[in-house]
Amino acid sequence: MSMDAPSVIRTKRDRGELTDAQIDWVIDAYTRGEVADEQMSALAMAILLNGMNLREISRWTDAMIRSGVRMDFSELGVPTSDKHSTGGVGDKITLPLAPLVAACGAAVPQLSGRGLGHTGGTLDKLESIPGWRALLSNDEMMQVLRDTGAVICAAGDGLAPADKKLYALRDVTGTVEAIPLIASSIMSKKIAEGTGALVLDVKVGSGAFMKNLADAQELARTMVGLGTNAGVNTVALLTDMSTPLGLTAGNALEVRESVEVLAGGGPADVVELTIALAREMLAAAGVHGKDPADALRDGSAMDHWRRMITAQGGDVDAPLPVAREQHVITAAESGVLTKLDAYGVGVCAWRLGAGRARKEDPVQAGAGVEMHFKPGDTVVAGQPLLTLHTDTPERYDYAIEALSGGIEISPAGTGFTPTPIILDRIA
Amino acid sequence: MSMDAPSVIRTKRDRGELTDAQIDWVIDAYTRGEVADEQMSALAMAILLNGMNLREISRWTDAMIRSGVRMDFSELGVPTSDKHSTGGVGDKITLPLAPLVAACGAAVPQLSGRGLGHTGGTLDKLESIPGWRALLSNDEMMQVLRDTGAVICAAGDGLAPADKKLYALRDVTGTVEAIPLIASSIMSKKIAEGTGALVLDVKVGSGAFMKNLADAQELARTMVGLGTNAGVNTVALLTDMSTPLGLTAGNALEVRESVEVLAGGGPADVVELTIALAREMLAAAGVHGKDPADALRDGSAMDHWRRMITAQGGDVDAPLPVAREQHVITAAESGVLTKLDAYGVGVCAWRLGAGRARKEDPVQAGAGVEMHFKPGDTVVAGQPLLTLHTDTPERYDYAIEALSGGIEISPAGTGFTPTPIILDRIA
Repeated sequence: MSMDAPSVIRTKRDRGELTDAQIDWVIDAYTRGEVADEQMSALAMAILLNGMNLREISRWTDAMIRSGVRMDFSELGVPTSDKHSTGGVGDKITLPLAPLVAACGAAVPQLSGRGLGHTGGTLDKLESIPGWRALLSNDEMMQVLRDTGAVICAAGDGLAPADKKLYALRDVTGTVEAIPLIASSIMSKKIAEGTGALVLDVKVGSGAFMKNLADAQELARTMVGLGTNAGVNTVALLTDMSTPLGLTAGNALEVRESVEVLAGGGPADVVELTIALAREMLAAAGVHGKDPADALRDGSAMDHWRRMITAQGGDVDAPLPVAREQHVITAAESGVLTKLDAYGVGVCAWRLGAGRARKEDPVQAGAGVEMHFKPGDTVVAGQPLLTLHTDTPERYDYAIEALSGGIEISPAGTGFTPTPIILDRIA
Repeated sequence: MSMDAPSVIRTKRDRGELTDAQIDWVIDAYTRGEVADEQMSALAMAILLNGMNLREISRWTDAMIRSGVRMDFSELGVPTSDKHSTGGVGDKITLPLAPLVAACGAAVPQLSGRGLGHTGGTLDKLESIPGWRALLSNDEMMQVLRDTGAVICAAGDGLAPADKKLYALRDVTGTVEAIPLIASSIMSKKIAEGTGALVLDVKVGSGAFMKNLADAQELARTMVGLGTNAGVNTVALLTDMSTPLGLTAGNALEVRESVEVLAGGGPADVVELTIALAREMLAAAGVHGKDPADALRDGSAMDHWRRMITAQGGDVDAPLPVAREQHVITAAESGVLTKLDAYGVGVCAWRLGAGRARKEDPVQAGAGVEMHFKPGDTVVAGQPLLTLHTDTPERYDYAIEALSGGIEISPAGTGFTPTPIILDRIA
């Protein structure tokens, strides 16, 4: 084929549409190392600034899927349904959600990632459970899924290797924030994973990647289009990320809160979003059995959680790790908590040790932020507002700095309209 | 300094202005290899699509100059003046121009390049003279300049090394066609070269880099601004490149035509442009001695040519190389030659062996295109229109293909308005 990287780059640079042949060639040649990093980064910048239409994004996604293996769960004989969140603060929803959906009759093959930046990663959270293993072989994964109805584990290297290479490149070349590239990165992995149905939780707000609703809607529409074109029944909920989800941001802290939800308790917002996403996942998979709210009440979701964690080596009865030190931040005045900013809390938890600066760094299992109030609550001066947990107390000052401007207490009687959790639905 | 490449890239990606500190840091870190090629290419694409203002381009140019050495001709005690052409077909003007200006009293330190693509390079042309050497040490260069008033040689590695690295990167990443990057690349080398005055010959038309007058004017204004800010007295002429200059495109073929001009003859367009550029170079240097038209007539320009070539090892009396085979293309019909396209002739000469596809390829000294008519001339069917010269006649068919659509003969009596050579002047 008489293709060359500069001519593909020039097409997009000059606001042209990439042909199917150009897209197939450039993804394949990049995976093989024939197109150089400096050529792909110039193309990524041209895509970020000049966009791609849905046909181009579809083909791009498809080419990334074809760069690796594609999984297949048809032998299970049960409908499969998965969820993907674009990432937020305190977003532990996957933990109660996977066993809950399994308890209601769909199989959940959840390939997850680790946290980078101020948003936590599902695998990091589960690894705070003593003995739990994220890395499974394909056979082990299939076995856990068959035996317990759900599995949460790391994606293997064979899945969309072009995306893996491109993602690392985008991270260092200022080309992360491109909707066509974000959408194709997420969807190539989810489609290659082989799920039958997919529910996207697209976060909107200060603690999310998408800061405003219009951008989030465009991303959601793009991803739903990609999934639908690939034969995956795909739905997106746009949900609020202006304040953290629940009352914890951290690893073991979020596992504890997830177990509370599975036991029929837990913060109202986490319960509401978990049930809403479970209903979408079941409907998208065409499973009409138990209602998720019932499965939380009757203990069947908790049973599935215990079986799933145990099957991956986790000791569900062992105490969770606790950070070496705690530091309480009290309310400076009395009134109504009118702001508890997701981004500030996320960065604070990250600086306390819950997150990592580089991919190879370890995380602290016990570190994070425990919140004692939600926006709209009435607080009294001197009451504990937040408890900070860390093994490295020398970083308290640096961590607290992240909260600056992120907490507001207004005079009692100030009107406060809570933001609904679910902002929009795109199908 | 707390700088990092992604944040610099994001500034330009989001249409911000780069600060002086950002520009200084990124050029220095790129030269040292701390900023990676894939980061610089993403930045180059963002600059191409989002632009830079004159302050940013000035600082960028200055940072590239400071990446290497800066030459100084003040010890000569004579005003220096140089010319730079943005590249065209049959553009041999530097060859008669440098000795002509020297004959009129200014010193000409001409650091030149080799051809790449369909435009020829001055050094390739001069290397067809037996014995002539393009590579001189700084001491040799100064000696030739002092003894003969002019020197044409290759730029040393120490001059603007950041530009050298960036130019090679742009070539493979589709980021050549950015006016801020073209302007800063040319001007960083010319300012570092240390000339006191500079005349830019900005080519416009099919055979040039800039296809339309508006783009060429923007490039010219940017370069004149950069030169003026750096204390170099800079003027630009915008000149026509819709048809080749003179009647030859090739290496030895163009040397032969240049010597004809120095002998007082030669094609009218080459003579006109050579004299116009010489007058600009002398005026910009503040030298008001001999008129260039007189120096062509009285043989003093030819004397300077012979001394300059001889000083660099060239044998001015040796016969020039001739290609192994010639092939004549005759006029298919009678009428007026209304089109002889510069780009077509340039690609034809290149394919005959006059140019190179990759930097490391050799060129054929004798190869090229000899034209027997200029646009506006009357031709009779069967008359020789072009003579193609090559050592590799197996490539005739491929070379002739480049002329397709590039030659038009219209019925006798068809009106033809010649394009003036000089289209605009920017100072």
